[in-house]
Amino acid sequence: MSKTNPGNFFEDFQVGQVLRHATPRTVTAGDVALYTALYGSRFAVQSSDAFARALHYPQAPVDDMLVFHIVFGKTVPDISLNAVANLGYAGGRFLAPVYPGDTLSAVSEVIGVKENSNGKTGVVYVRSTGYKQDGTEVLDYVRWVMVRKRDPASPAPTPVTPVLPDAIEPDALGDACPLINSGAWDADLSGAPHRFDDYALDEKIDHVDGMTVEEAEHQLATRLYQNTAKVHFNQYTEGQGRFGRRLIYGGHVISLARALSFNGLGNAFHIAGINAGRHVAPLFAGDTVFAWSHVIEKATISGRDDVGALRLRMIATKDRPCSDFPLVDGEGRYDASVILDFDFWALIPR
Amino acid sequence: MSKTNPGNFFEDFQVGQVLRHATPRTVTAGDVALYTALYGSRFAVQSSDAFARALHYPQAPVDDMLVFHIVFGKTVPDISLNAVANLGYAGGRFLAPVYPGDTLSAVSEVIGVKENSNGKTGVVYVRSTGYKQDGTEVLDYVRWVMVRKRDPASPAPTPVTPVLPDAIEPDALGDACPLINSGAWDADLSGAPHRFDDYALDEKIDHVDGMTVEEAEHQLATRLYQNTAKVHFNQYTEGQGRFGRRLIYGGHVISLARALSFNGLGNAFHIAGINAGRHVAPLFAGDTVFAWSHVIEKATISGRDDVGALRLRMIATKDRPCSDFPLVDGEGRYDASVILDFDFWALIPR
Amino acid sequence: MSKTNPGNFFEDFQVGQVLRHATPRTVTAGDVALYTALYGSRFAVQSSDAFARALHYPQAPVDDMLVFHIVFGKTVPDISLNAVANLGYAGGRFLAPVYPGDTLSAVSEVIGVKENSNGKTGVVYVRSTGYKQDGTEVLDYVRWVMVRKRDPASPAPTPVTPVLPDAIEPDALGDACPLINSGAWDADLSGAPHRFDDYALDEKIDHVDGMTVEEAEHQLATRLYQNTAKVHFNQYTEGQGRFGRRLIYGGHVISLARALSFNGLGNAFHIAGINAGRHVAPLFAGDTVFAWSHVIEKATISGRDDVGALRLRMIATKDRPCSDFPLVDGEGRYDASVILDFDFWALIPR
Repeated sequence: MSKTNPGNFFEDFQVGQVLRHATPRTVTAGDVALYTALYGSRFAVQSSDAFARALHYPQAPVDDMLVFHIVFGKTVPDISLNAVANLGYAGGRFLAPVYPGDTLSAVSEVIGVKENSNGKTGVVYVRSTGYKQDGTEVLDYVRWVMVRKRDPASPAPTPVTPVLPDAIEPDALGDACPLINSGAWDADLSGAPHRFDDYALDEKIDHVDGMTVEEAEHQLATRLYQNTAKVHFNQYTEGQGRFGRRLIYGGHVISLARALSFNGLGNAFHIAGINAGRHVAPLFAGDTVFAWSHVIEKATISGRDDVGALRLRMIATKDRPCSDFPLVDGEGRYDASVILDFDFWALIPR
Repeated sequence: MSKTNPGNFFEDFQVGQVLRHATPRTVTAGDVALYTALYGSRFAVQSSDAFARALHYPQAPVDDMLVFHIVFGKTVPDISLNAVANLGYAGGRFLAPVYPGDTLSAVSEVIGVKENSNGKTGVVYVRSTGYKQDGTEVLDYVRWVMVRKRDPASPAPTPVTPVLPDAIEPDALGDACPLINSGAWDADLSGAPHRFDDYALDEKIDHVDGMTVEEAEHQLATRLYQNTAKVHFNQYTEGQGRFGRRLIYGGHVISLARALSFNGLGNAFHIAGINAGRHVAPLFAGDTVFAWSHVIEKATISGRDDVGALRLRMIATKDRPCSDFPLVDGEGRYDASVILDFDFWALIPR
Repeated sequence: MSKTNPGNFFEDFQVGQVLRHATPRTVTAGDVALYTALYGSRFAVQSSDAFARALHYPQAPVDDMLVFHIVFGKTVPDISLNAVANLGYAGGRFLAPVYPGDTLSAVSEVIGVKENSNGKTGVVYVRSTGYKQDGTEVLDYVRWVMVRKRDPASPAPTPVTPVLPDAIEPDALGDACPLINSGAWDADLSGAPHRFDDYALDEKIDHVDGMTVEEAEHQLATRLYQNTAKVHFNQYTEGQGRFGRRLIYGGHVISLARALSFNGLGNAFHIAGINAGRHVAPLFAGDTVFAWSHVIEKATISGRDDVGALRLRMIATKDRPCSDFPLVDGEGRYDASVILDFDFWALIPR
C-alpha cells in the first residue's frame, strides 16, 4: 500500500464524519514577525504588547487571519487536496485570543455533501474548528469545496445542504476580544481617530494603496501555514495546467486586503466573525492588489460598551485602483478586476 | 470626510510642531531572525546571547539598523508620504540598547521648513526620537525631506534651517553600549582579529562581496518595518511612474552595506552615531550591491577604555565592485555606480 | 595588511589543524518560523510544543537540518570560501537536541589533505563539530571539498585520506532524541499511520509533490544560516561565471527534499545520522524539486524500544517527477534530473 497521502475524494466524505487534522503547530513570535513582513499589517493591538496591555490584554494577540490561515492549512490535506475549487466560507467566529506559545490544532466535521450534475465532482461542506493545546476553541467556520470523485461511476450520496447563516449575530461576536479599556485607546498610536460612531451605514472606503505580490512571498506565506495545496508551489506541474502559473492561496489575498484596509479602518482592530467569503478570481504573482470596504451593518454587542461591530464587505481587486469602488456590472456580474468578496464583522472601540 | 490618511503636505508642517507616530511595535526574536535572513549580518554581539553575555550585555541586543528602520518606518505616514525625496540624515545617536520584548514608538519634532524656489515643494527638517515602552530614548536623528505642497499658491513660510552638526562628538557616543569586558572579546568567534588600534586614519577597506536584491526581499524588509511608502510596493503605479520600477527603501541599502562591511570591519560591532547620510541614487531589484569604507576619524571616548570609535564613510555601489574605491569623479560628481554615502561612528574594542 | 578575509587556500590546511569558527548564533523561535516558511516542513515533533511534550521532550526541538545548516554555515568562511566544489558528507551524527535559546558555535579539524594531479587544487577533509553554549556537542560530521591552491607551484603535502565509515552504526544513533513515550504518538496529529514495522527493506516511496524555488527564497535561507559562500548571492559576478546564474546552496535542496518526504515518511521525525551525501548537480531558481526515498536498511537501537532507525537514500531531482524513481542509467551514471543523493538514518516510532 502506498505510504503517501492521496487526499480524500468526494466518495470519502459522509455527513457526520469527523476528521482530526495533522499537524499541530505552536505559534510563536517568529510567525508574528513573518506575518508583519508578508503583509505590513499595522493594527496597534497586534503590533504592540504595550498598547495591548494598556487595553487589558495580557499581551499582543496573534493576528486573527494568521490564526485562520494556520487552522485552514491543517484542513487542506484531508479536505481539499483533490479540490477543484474553494467555493466559499460562512459562519466563522473567533472564539478566544491566541498568543505566542499557544499550540493550534484543527478538527473538521462534514456537514453536507451534494454531487454535481456532471457526476464527476461534488460539493463538500465542512465545519472546521481550531483548538488550543488545552482544548479551548479559537475559531470555528464553515467552508465548502468542489471535490473530484475518485470514480465517476460511483453512486451519488443523498444530498445534504446545511443551512448556513447569512451573518453571525452581533451578540455571538467578541469571545476572542477581552473587555478592553477603550478609554486608554490612544488614537495617535493607533494611527486613526475614527471610532464606531464615526462610521456611517453604507459608507464606502477606498483603501488607496496597492501591493504587488511576488512568487517568493506567497510561497513563504502558504508554507508558513503548512498549507500543502499543490497548485501554490509547483511551477513544473502548474506550467502545464489550466493557468500556466502557480495560483496564489486565496487567504493570502484576504490578508493583503486586510492590511491595506488599515488605511481607513485603522481602529477596526479585530476580526470577530466571517459572514461570507468568496474568491471571485485567481491572483498571480506580479499582480497588484487594491481594496475597498463597504460598511453594510453596524451593531452593538449586548453587555459591551467598549467596542462595537462594523459589518464590512471588503472587496479586493487586481491591477485596478478602487477609488470608484469596482464591484459588479449592470447585470450583476463581478467586475473583471475583482478577486475577493469578503463579508466580515470587525470590532472597533466605541 | 475621508477616513484615509492623505499624509501631510508642506503647508502642514510648522517649526515646533510635534507628531506622535503610529504604530507602536514590539521587537521580537522573530524580527531578529528576519533581519539575519534579509542581510546575512554576522556581528557576533547581535548574533549570540552567549557572546553578548561574556561582554556583560544581559543578552544579545537588537541590530542598530533594525531599531533605526522600525523608528524610521513609523515616521513615514506623517512625514514623508508626500515626499519627493529623502534628502539626508544627520545628528543621529543610539541612546539605549534594545532587546527582544521592547516596544518601540516614535515622535518627531519639526525643526525646519524651507520652501523651494519652484513654489511646488519645500524641505522639511524633523528630529525623530524612538522610545521604549518605559519612555527610555533609544534613538534620535534628524532627517530632511522634500515634500510636495498641497497648493502651489499657498504662501511660503518663514524659512528656518536648523544648524546641524557635521558629526556627533565622540563623548556623546556609547549610550547604547554598556561598558563591555573587552578582555573577553574572542577574536575567533567574532571572526576578525582587528581592534581599534589596528585601523589607520584614512584607511580604505573594500568589503569585496556583493549581494543581489530581489523584489520579494526588499518588500518583506520594508513591510517588516511597517514603512508604508508607496513607491516600494506598488508595481501597478510605479510601472507608470518616473522609473517604471518599484524603488527600494534606502534603508535596505544601508543594512546591506553594513552587513557586507563585516568583511573588513568584523569587530566594529555597534553603530553609535549617524553623522550624515545620503541616498545618492536609487536601487532596483536585480541590482547587486557592493560596498567599501573609509576610516575618516578615530576617537577615544571619555571614561571608556573598553571601546574606541571609528568614524567610517561607507560607500555602497550597484553593479560595481569596489576594489578601486569608487566615489567621485574629477569634478566632484559621484561616480554613476554610487548609491549611498553614509558617515557614521562605529564602536570597536580597544 | 588587508582587513578582509581571503579564505584559506589548499596550502593553508594541515592535518591536525583545528579551526574555531565565527559567528556564534543563538537559535530562536524566529529561525524556526523562517524554516517553516522556507520549506513547509510538517513533522509534528518539531512543529508543536504540545506534541513534543506528550512524548517527553521538554518542548519542540529545532529541526535537525536547521541545526546542520547553522553549523555548516559557520565553517564556510574558513573551509570553503575558495572551494571549487563541495564533494561529499559522511559520518554525521546528531548528538543532542537543540532548543530555541541555545547558542551554536562550530569547530573543525582537518583530517585529510590530498593534492589533485592537476596541481591546481586539492581535496581537504574536515570533521566539523557544532556545540551549544555549555560545550555540549550537538552535531559532528565530515565533509570534503575541493579547494584551490594559492600557488600552483607550491609543493604537494603528504596525502592523507581519512577512513570514513560507510554508515553510522545503529547503536551510535539516538543521542539527540530523548527516550520518547511512543504510546503517546498520535497518528492523526502526526499525519501518518506508518511506524517502523510498516516499512519494508527495499521499499521505494515517491514523495509526489514538487516545490519550485525562487531566488529570494534560497538567498533568505542561506543568509539565515550566515553562510557566506559568494556563489549564492552575487548575480553580478555569477552572471559572468560558469553557470551565468546564482547557484543554490546544496543544503537548501536537502531541506526541500526532507520537507517533501513528509508525504510518505510522516513519522520519520528525526534525522539521527548522515551516512553519505552528494550534490550531484546544481539547482537554480525557477527549477522545481521532487524527491523519492529508498529504504536501504532497517535497524533497532540497543536499549531503545521506543524508536527504530530507517536508513533512507533520499534522491532529489529537478523538473522531473519521481513516480518511476529516477536514479542511474544502465551504465551507472546519474539520471540528468538527479541533483541530490543523500543517505541518512531517520528515527521513527516502533
